[in-house]
Amino acid sequence: MAVITIIGSGMMGSAMAFPARENGHEVRLVGSPLDHEIIDVCKKTNRHIKFDHDFPEGVKFYYIEDVKEAIEGADAIVCGVSSFGVDWFGENMLPIIPDDVPILSITKGLINTEDGRLITYPEYWKRFTETKKCINAVGGPCISFDLTWHDHTVVSFCGEDMEVLARLREYFSTDYYHISITKDVVGVESAVALKNGYALGVALTVGLQDRRTNGDTKMRYNCQAAVFGQALRELTKILDFQGANTLDNQVVFTGDLYVTVYGGRTRQVGILLGKGLDIDEAKAELKGVTLESLVIIERVARAVKYNAEKGILDPKDFPLLLHIYDIIIDKKPVDLPWNDFTYEG
Amino acid sequence: MAVITIIGSGMMGSAMAFPARENGHEVRLVGSPLDHEIIDVCKKTNRHIKFDHDFPEGVKFYYIEDVKEAIEGADAIVCGVSSFGVDWFGENMLPIIPDDVPILSITKGLINTEDGRLITYPEYWKRFTETKKCINAVGGPCISFDLTWHDHTVVSFCGEDMEVLARLREYFSTDYYHISITKDVVGVESAVALKNGYALGVALTVGLQDRRTNGDTKMRYNCQAAVFGQALRELTKILDFQGANTLDNQVVFTGDLYVTVYGGRTRQVGILLGKGLDIDEAKAELKGVTLESLVIIERVARAVKYNAEKGILDPKDFPLLLHIYDIIIDKKPVDLPWNDFTYEG
Repeated sequence: MAVITIIGSGMMGSAMAFPARENGHEVRLVGSPLDHEIIDVCKKTNRHIKFDHDFPEGVKFYYIEDVKEAIEGADAIVCGVSSFGVDWFGENMLPIIPDDVPILSITKGLINTEDGRLITYPEYWKRFTETKKCINAVGGPCISFDLTWHDHTVVSFCGEDMEVLARLREYFSTDYYHISITKDVVGVESAVALKNGYALGVALTVGLQDRRTNGDTKMRYNCQAAVFGQALRELTKILDFQGANTLDNQVVFTGDLYVTVYGGRTRQVGILLGKGLDIDEAKAELKGVTLESLVIIERVARAVKYNAEKGILDPKDFPLLLHIYDIIIDKKPVDLPWNDFTYEG
Repeated sequence: MAVITIIGSGMMGSAMAFPARENGHEVRLVGSPLDHEIIDVCKKTNRHIKFDHDFPEGVKFYYIEDVKEAIEGADAIVCGVSSFGVDWFGENMLPIIPDDVPILSITKGLINTEDGRLITYPEYWKRFTETKKCINAVGGPCISFDLTWHDHTVVSFCGEDMEVLARLREYFSTDYYHISITKDVVGVESAVALKNGYALGVALTVGLQDRRTNGDTKMRYNCQAAVFGQALRELTKILDFQGANTLDNQVVFTGDLYVTVYGGRTRQVGILLGKGLDIDEAKAELKGVTLESLVIIERVARAVKYNAEKGILDPKDFPLLLHIYDIIIDKKPVDLPWNDFTYEG
């Protein structure tokens, strides 16, 4: 039996408690400084506010004040913060995690550097610590809610050390949670981050359709499919740029885009923009909702623009991404460049 | 103004009348020998039985008996038969189409040869005619119903001659119908044919979920996404085998798979199989429904098996396809090999 400590009790972090605890491990779920209310309810009911059924019996819940106790003796740490908690985790958690305890991050995103690169959170976190930490990450199509429901789920654990990855896989794999392991951290993390941005692109078409028909109930798919395909095209160009253009990464992206198109928050903002709201109005409508997709679009688009100016990338390869950037940053109206999604040759 | 003759008045063939006629061309829609009733209704109402709104004004409708008149003076012929009408078209229509009139086929499928190859219909049709015909084809995500509704649609016209393709594009392209042109017939047609088989794979998971929950109304997406990603992985291996592994073809496939997962017939049979019906029971339930997906799965799986025996392909690269084959040919129960969808390295 191992000890698994999950820091951050959002939906995805909390969902990781299910396979780990069902495998018989000791699971300690620690709320972030923003999660006191969640932990209160977990302690009282053994259920997460956002889930519709209980945690497996025996999960232990901790407030952030008790995080050191929760880390004591852990065999693995899950970083369960959102991309908005990355600096907090780096500044406050990394220093108190022993170097020999592997970390598995569920945080999805990329950081753009001043020199036009897009780096992963595992790489970014190296800035916060002088000692070497073993930071791994999870990618692939996984809605937390579905995972807690034991829906079959195929994900990728990525990191620098295959032995550590195999151990992490052993902790978490169940008859419904199926885990690939790979050393291609940049590829997996790029694929996973970008799906958020492109899911917004697909959702734009749903909103456009709503606007055109005043809520015609029959869903149309040709337009969604065209954007979905274009997303794979642009993603592959980004993978090229990242030195990570592999079929495995395309597969991770495609599956992850598929679940995200139907997931909650990114879809909602895309539909509102498609309906004709500007980004401020859409944000107001979705008050308090975490919108990681907007951050990643801005970061990736800035990197593309930077490298296009240097002649390293061709902006013509990214008509969808750059149009979404124009919509959310420059408040341009939604007017998808459909003909730029065609090819010749 | 050009003259466009469409032979076969199924939904997709008939939908092609919309962009062509809206562009001001003369459009002649000819029913196949099975389409008399459709043409009867079209002549009376100017509406297709399966559509919810009228054809553009001025489309001309023909029974098959008048096909020669309909071909007279045509600038392009659309072949609108399903894959079950391929031999009929080759035997009866090709000989009466002048050699200098380009054909655009919407028929989707592949034929497997005795020596383990998978050939396209344009190639197959060469067997029916001693003279050279210019046979082009359409691929990409397009549900006919959505096209008639002017939903934005991105497709690929493929053929041997770029000038002909450019002319065909001119006939059909509108502000909602966006057309790529390419000489990669094998790639486009392989992608398009295979999406039918793999859409059935995604639908299996929907049926499995129904069975598990007795119709839980909340849709789960992790399992669908895992199969969707695996489909791209296996498709890419088939494209490799076909000598057509390009990003363009992956994009065509991915978009087309996306619309097909939500389209009608293939989804229905996959759900029924996932629920536990065997293939005969599923076919009985869907009596009279055209199931091209079953044909393509059998053909591609046979080609994979043949080439696996020769050591040319590795069956481990196709766990999803081969499992679907087992279900529909050998009536094995649905038991998706989830762990075979993971990778390592």
